[in-house]
Order: sequence, then C-alpha cells, then structure tokens
Amino acid sequence: MKLVRYGEPGAERPGILDGEGRIRDVSSLVADFAGEALSPASLGRIRNADLAALPLAETGVRLGPCVSKPGHFIAIGLNYVDHAHESNMPIPTEPVVFSKAPSSISGPTDDVVMPEGSEKSDWEVEIAMVIGTAAFNVSEADALDHVAGFCICNDVSERSYQIERGGQWIKGKSLPTYGPIGPWLVTRDEIADVQNLGLWLDVNGERRQTGSTSSMIFSLAHIISYLSRFMRLEPGDIITTGTPPGVGMGMKPPTYLKRGDVMTLGIDGLGDQRQTVR
Amino acid sequence: MKLVRYGEPGAERPGILDGEGRIRDVSSLVADFAGEALSPASLGRIRNADLAALPLAETGVRLGPCVSKPGHFIAIGLNYVDHAHESNMPIPTEPVVFSKAPSSISGPTDDVVMPEGSEKSDWEVEIAMVIGTAAFNVSEADALDHVAGFCICNDVSERSYQIERGGQWIKGKSLPTYGPIGPWLVTRDEIADVQNLGLWLDVNGERRQTGSTSSMIFSLAHIISYLSRFMRLEPGDIITTGTPPGVGMGMKPPTYLKRGDVMTLGIDGLGDQRQTVR
Repeated sequence: MKLVRYGEPGAERPGILDGEGRIRDVSSLVADFAGEALSPASLGRIRNADLAALPLAETGVRLGPCVSKPGHFIAIGLNYVDHAHESNMPIPTEPVVFSKAPSSISGPTDDVVMPEGSEKSDWEVEIAMVIGTAAFNVSEADALDHVAGFCICNDVSERSYQIERGGQWIKGKSLPTYGPIGPWLVTRDEIADVQNLGLWLDVNGERRQTGSTSSMIFSLAHIISYLSRFMRLEPGDIITTGTPPGVGMGMKPPTYLKRGDVMTLGIDGLGDQRQTVR
Repeated sequence: MKLVRYGEPGAERPGILDGEGRIRDVSSLVADFAGEALSPASLGRIRNADLAALPLAETGVRLGPCVSKPGHFIAIGLNYVDHAHESNMPIPTEPVVFSKAPSSISGPTDDVVMPEGSEKSDWEVEIAMVIGTAAFNVSEADALDHVAGFCICNDVSERSYQIERGGQWIKGKSLPTYGPIGPWLVTRDEIADVQNLGLWLDVNGERRQTGSTSSMIFSLAHIISYLSRFMRLEPGDIITTGTPPGVGMGMKPPTYLKRGDVMTLGIDGLGDQRQTVR
C-alpha cells in the first residue's frame, strides 16, 4: 500500500493510492497515520477495505508529511562510506545516532524555509523507516518485522548550526521544514529488497547525489536492532538512515542552498519529492 | 496548580492536588496532560473548576510521569560550571543540546531498570520545563510565557553508551525508565523565582548533589529563546536543563549505580522523587 496524508497543513486526512494512482480517503478506517494507527492490525483493516467504495480525494491536492506527529524522529549519520569521506569524518564502527525535532517534518513538495542568517543549508536524500510495533532489544533477524513501511526523507541540514554551535548535531537538523517526508508511506510488503534501492537528488536539475541502499555501512535491520539496545522504539517513530555521497558540504568548494533553488529527489519504489528553497 | 497523572503504567488519569494534598480526578476536564491539553486555555479550565466537586482518587495510588507522550524530550548539557569541571568538559559558550527518547519517561517512584551489561549508569537531578504554547524565534523576555510549568527530571545517563559509543549523547540518555519526571507538573504561577530553587540528590541516603538554579550558566528563559532559533517547540515538549555537580562520573574514583541502590532527589517547590535501581 502507498499511504498518504493530504490536505492543508495541519488539517491533513489519511488516504491511500488506488490502482490508478488516485487518492482514496481512509478517514473512515483510521483517524490519522500516527502511533498505533500504523500497527499491523490497523494497516490490515485498510488492506482489507474495498478501495472502490472509499471516497476519492479531489485531484491536485497537496500532500502532507506521510506520517503525523512522530513520537521520535531519529537519524543515522555517516552511513555510506563515501559520504563519511566527503564529510572528513572517520568511518563509524557503530551507527552514529542523533535526532531531528519532530516539528521539522513537512510535506514532500512544501517549501524549505531557510532562517534569516542561514548560510550553510544542505540537502541529504535518505530512506526512512516508520515503526509499526514497539521494539526493544530485538534481534537483527526480527528487526524489520517492526517496520510499518518506508518513505523518502530529505534530511535538510544547516551545517553551521550542526557543527559550529557546540557539539551535538540536533541543532542543525531541526528547523521547521527541514524534514520533508513522503510522498507516500510504502508498506513493507511492497518493497522486495530494501537493501537494493537507488537514491538520487538533483539541485536545479543537476545531479548531486546518486547512491544505492546496497552500499550502506549498517543495514536497516542492523540499525533497528542496534537502536533497540539503547531505547524503546514506538509505533510512529521515524528513523532516517543516512545519505549517500554528494552533499553540498562535500563539494569543492562547499556549495550550499540559496533561496530559489529547487531540490528534486527520489528513491526506487518510494516516489519523489520536490522542494523550493525560500 | 500541581498536576499529576495517576494509576497503572499506560493507564494513567489526569489529576490535580487539592488544598489538602489529595488527588482530584480531572479527566472530565482534560483527556490527558499532553500536547494542547497544556495550553493556557486548557489549564484555565482546570483552574476555574470547583475542585471539591471533582472525584477523589484512591489514596496511595501510583504516580506516573506528570506529562504523557512528549513530542520532544530535549536536554541541556553542562549547564552548571562545576558540573562541566567534574566532567572534564569545557565551559560551553552556547547551550549544549541533545535529546532523550520520549519513551524513556517514567513515573517519579518507578524503578530504574538497568540493562544487562550496563556498568556506568549515573544520576542527574534537573529542573525540567514543559512547553504550553508553541515557540519559534522567541525573545528571552517572552520565553517563559511559553512554559506551562516545571517538574523534576532525573536525567539518568549510561555514561559508556553516552560517551564511548560513537559521538552523540542520545544513546546514553534514552533507555526506558531513564527519564523519571514528576511527581507534579507545577504551573508557572506557583514558582516565584525559578532561577532561585535548591536542588539535591541522595544515593542510599548520602548526599551526592547539591545546587541551585541560581548558578546555571544559561537561564531557563535563555534556553527557550536559544532553542527556538533552531526548532519550533511544541505544547507538551519537555526540556530538562542540566545538572549541578555531584554526579557519579565526577567522583574519585567514578562511582556508578548498582542494582538495589535508592536515589532520592528533590527541588524546592517541585516535590521529590525516589527510585530503586534494579
């Protein structure tokens, strides 16, 4: 299933893409895509519904973030060897874990709003996982069973806030609109091999990032198992899993986003995003 | 007002202490103390209620965390000069910001459960703020207007996970039960001067930490204003603000929690907590 949230910011409704790519409203089945609504039982109710009997959304409607109110928005750093190199950081021996403010999430085509004075905002195409059932101390073999689905995340990062303002990365990762997710939450059953998906990102039509989840240092299953030793993951939590090489910080000279720039990005099977910077 | 959540874990109900220290159930006025229920309008409804007409909770009931499902659980590091010294860290020139998993919260007298293999779990008495209205780019003068109230937080920390496992502190701060909050959410109007409150923590009856919010490096108002440049704070977010000296990591030799240890801790006007380690 490809699950969406559609409508005006703050008033999104849950929906699902039907066989013809139209949005069917599922608010009769689930209040919103958040928390327990992402459990296997809840998703099963949607899977078993007669899509043709559900109301169609109007065409051209805005898509919001595909998940609402994540309890926790976790991110993994330096999870592709070449990106660690371009960042002048050592190859991690364990996953690097930080977080983004949940209030940073935005829709896949919403503008990215740079704050006054921001000079080093940068792009990062990533595959994100959304948790469906709580996970604490889970094995790598069982880890993906706790995932409801996958989506694209642009882990937009203000590098000066991230690196030059006192140690922990959270400061550069948390601005409102710096966490576009979507367009769809694609349920796990739709992705045959999540460790073999291409990722790409363009700025103003020029290719900046190209990668494949096959070249991650730590697999998605490893990340969940690893995180679950340190914290209990809860339904609705988002975990974005690191970016392939090609970020602006790694260019020579470093090149950051300017107002008016357009980022387009995509992942095999997960759709694409497009944001204008303002 | 002193607001509480009482009852079994996961099934807590909202309550308020009456003039005789008894818990009155306010679930007829508010579903739970989380998110928008902490707004001035929502708290105003409780303030205007006739407490004597509200049902009494049974005596001796367990207290849960005084806030449910924080959207974000933010923490400030090294906010007292002497604690930075004992941690062998430089005095920060800007607030050090990290986060705890929201799933780490627990009640003020719940056991703290050390994971298998944890050797360096440590205590940290702190004053926490709970946000009542959204804050983004707010001035220091206006900052505290965005606070619903204050509570004690024991920012329990696994030092090896925090420091020896790859950079960001979140790993050592996020285990379930490593974030006791409460007993009460004390609304802002009850605290005459939040920058002049004593804090203390004992382990097995021996005083370990003594401090005052008057010796913070960054005031609570500064912290909110500062954070609001990097992220939008939302109603229900918890911000715990750093610990005074006396943590186990700073003892000579370093001394960490053992199973069976009892931590008791308190802050002027905010009550006290007691946790057994197991």
